[in-house]
Amino acid sequence: MEERLKKQMEFLLEMDKLKFINRQTYLSDSVRKENDAEHSWHLALMAVLLAEHADEEVDLLKVITMVLIHDLVEIDAGDTYAYDEAGKQTQRAREEKAADRIFGMLPKDQGENFRALWEEFDAYETPEAKFAHVCDNVQPLMLNHATDGKSWRERGIKRSQVEKRNSRVGESSQTMKTYIEEILDKNVEKGNLKNE
Amino acid sequence: MEERLKKQMEFLLEMDKLKFINRQTYLSDSVRKENDAEHSWHLALMAVLLAEHADEEVDLLKVITMVLIHDLVEIDAGDTYAYDEAGKQTQRAREEKAADRIFGMLPKDQGENFRALWEEFDAYETPEAKFAHVCDNVQPLMLNHATDGKSWRERGIKRSQVEKRNSRVGESSQTMKTYIEEILDKNVEKGNLKNE
Repeated sequence: MEERLKKQMEFLLEMDKLKFINRQTYLSDSVRKENDAEHSWHLALMAVLLAEHADEEVDLLKVITMVLIHDLVEIDAGDTYAYDEAGKQTQRAREEKAADRIFGMLPKDQGENFRALWEEFDAYETPEAKFAHVCDNVQPLMLNHATDGKSWRERGIKRSQVEKRNSRVGESSQTMKTYIEEILDKNVEKGNLKNE
Repeated sequence: MEERLKKQMEFLLEMDKLKFINRQTYLSDSVRKENDAEHSWHLALMAVLLAEHADEEVDLLKVITMVLIHDLVEIDAGDTYAYDEAGKQTQRAREEKAADRIFGMLPKDQGENFRALWEEFDAYETPEAKFAHVCDNVQPLMLNHATDGKSWRERGIKRSQVEKRNSRVGESSQTMKTYIEEILDKNVEKGNLKNE
């Protein structure tokens, strides 16, 4: 087998491990928690359908590739819960190290391309990165809403914490910003989120 | 909330059910079986990296969208195992009915677009459909190889059955055809596949 394909297939097999990285969000059955591979698939599907709501035009292929790979570093670095302030202190260092190993498995050009896309997502500056973050914010919100805020209730999450996390959605999409506000109102009303 | 976004979000929530549709392939840990959402994510990632091996140029965004949605009908129709000949008799009728309901949840234009992409995948005629099938064939093969043919052994699968299923890979990629043959040789040698 040629060296290039060998590296690609070894990488693809290693990435199977994303299916074992669990997140804190419950699936719509309110029983099982979501893993990173399922989450990434859902974001990609969401990007296809909701890209029309981005206020600035986005390169959809770029957005999708970004969301497909945005969590790969968690294979080594683990998932850092959105409201784990201590974990977030060390997150960047853990993820940089993971990125070196993981993207380093690929043929040089493809590894550099993925690394650059991952950095672009993290830098949160381009229209694609901003819209990818909209999806990454809205998807767990949708599941939390569907499960009567199960994950929020278990941790006593406040509306202000979710608002802080979602504070930049309006930079990409006014429509999705309004959607999020409606969801938060409903969940405060139901007592799923603390009104603080 | 505007009607269009409401339909899109209801669809996206309903599609969460893809995470509960289990396939027959074991993940690389040889313990848990893969679900359709994880599988679809893996195919999309594979498409990004391996599209360069398609002998005819493909529209990558189209291939990715196709693999992201190719199994959605299984939410209603269930997964039909590749070597379940009885199940395959009724598969098309079950999946057509599922497609009516599932794609019918979306705003008309998006539903028609997804339906057309799903039909295109199934018709197996365009370069994109052919390459999407390459990914759909190679990904479970990669996992079967990694798990010492666990799923094949459990069912006494023959090399000829896998060859039949993969018989059209060469229409899209000679490189991937060669890759598959090497994997089959190795698995027959190890006794993971019956040499028939």
